[in-house]
Amino acid sequence: MARQMRAVRTRDALVESAAALFDRDGFDVASLAAVSARAGVSSGALNFHFPSKVELAEAVVAAAAERLVRIIRDREAPTLQSVIDASHELVRGLRGDAVLRAGFALSGCRRARRRCDAAGDGPGTDLRRLWCGWVESVVARAEREGQLAPDVTAEEVTETVVAVATGHAVLGTQDPRWLEGAPLTRFWALLLPRVVGAARAGLFVAAGARGTEPLHPRPVAVTVGGEV
Amino acid sequence: MARQMRAVRTRDALVESAAALFDRDGFDVASLAAVSARAGVSSGALNFHFPSKVELAEAVVAAAAERLVRIIRDREAPTLQSVIDASHELVRGLRGDAVLRAGFALSGCRRARRRCDAAGDGPGTDLRRLWCGWVESVVARAEREGQLAPDVTAEEVTETVVAVATGHAVLGTQDPRWLEGAPLTRFWALLLPRVVGAARAGLFVAAGARGTEPLHPRPVAVTVGGEV
Repeated sequence: MARQMRAVRTRDALVESAAALFDRDGFDVASLAAVSARAGVSSGALNFHFPSKVELAEAVVAAAAERLVRIIRDREAPTLQSVIDASHELVRGLRGDAVLRAGFALSGCRRARRRCDAAGDGPGTDLRRLWCGWVESVVARAEREGQLAPDVTAEEVTETVVAVATGHAVLGTQDPRWLEGAPLTRFWALLLPRVVGAARAGLFVAAGARGTEPLHPRPVAVTVGGEV
Repeated sequence: MARQMRAVRTRDALVESAAALFDRDGFDVASLAAVSARAGVSSGALNFHFPSKVELAEAVVAAAAERLVRIIRDREAPTLQSVIDASHELVRGLRGDAVLRAGFALSGCRRARRRCDAAGDGPGTDLRRLWCGWVESVVARAEREGQLAPDVTAEEVTETVVAVATGHAVLGTQDPRWLEGAPLTRFWALLLPRVVGAARAGLFVAAGARGTEPLHPRPVAVTVGGEV
């Protein structure tokens, strides 16, 4: 294995390990020693890749942002259905992927955020802002194209979808049933007749029309010894 | 001032101080030394009232639960309007009251919860469960009394209201505009015609029909010297 490829693998293993521990124990409690031990990497290798816990947190948020971008990109001419589909994919991702979970938690946690801000973290890695911005743009487009019912505004639809998805994500940390998809399907079934009008609600699939593929399966921990 | 009254004041000051610091810095980072200093109380007095940080967190959650109970109680023959009103009062409380904010965060944080669980914290002080349970009972009653539209279930309404309120609370920690009331009013304006039928939506006030009184104003810090 080439030296460079080993380094990439080590780095990936450290990010996965950090995500799992931030997710389980929180940013403040998770220790660098536990992160390197879980990844099967020496503390020297950890220090080579991430000189501080803040930089490790930034790498987790960046990895989560990549996955979120994968969820929302490639939806050509996105419509309301793509918002439904992406919300299901996001909830599924939060259920199964510690990187996405830890990334959202770090992105939403004032403690970690303040640290990230101090380290020069830009708005591009604010996952909630990324998600909000995308929903907002798609719903605004749906409104311009006359997809929304006449007495409904893009603003109230965007806010409700963003708040509900955030609520499911947060409630899911206590009770995983919130992330099983059924509550989200019920939400869309409740909302759609109001948002697009009862006559057109049947054109949409509340349970999500695509995206049964699992979200980016990655090995949880690649043991690569102490190599950098 | 009687000795007992001084003790109550000291305890209240410590709970307010702890709430402010848990809210600002998080449970894991906030130190007992900072809590006693902020309350103007000696560390001996702090130790007398709260032998550990876990017990302090429990007291914050209990104080928040009292305020939540005050928000949802005393609504005779509660109807959907009382859910609207209580949701507005809750969001207003989260905006202005560090005890309520810290209580919800501690109640929702897996770290602090595990600690609380270990210390024998009962389900009665799980604020989200308390809130969910109340919304569920009122919406179920509304369904039994024929207040809901025929093609709407109590379950989907309860889930949506609980998820949206949670979403507003969490998003409000990053952007206070979520707690200003207007987004919640827009949510209810969007949801009501679907939930009760367009013809009856006008019977409800999306902005909340009562509860302009401020939520339980309490002094943020009572300086009582080192007395217990």
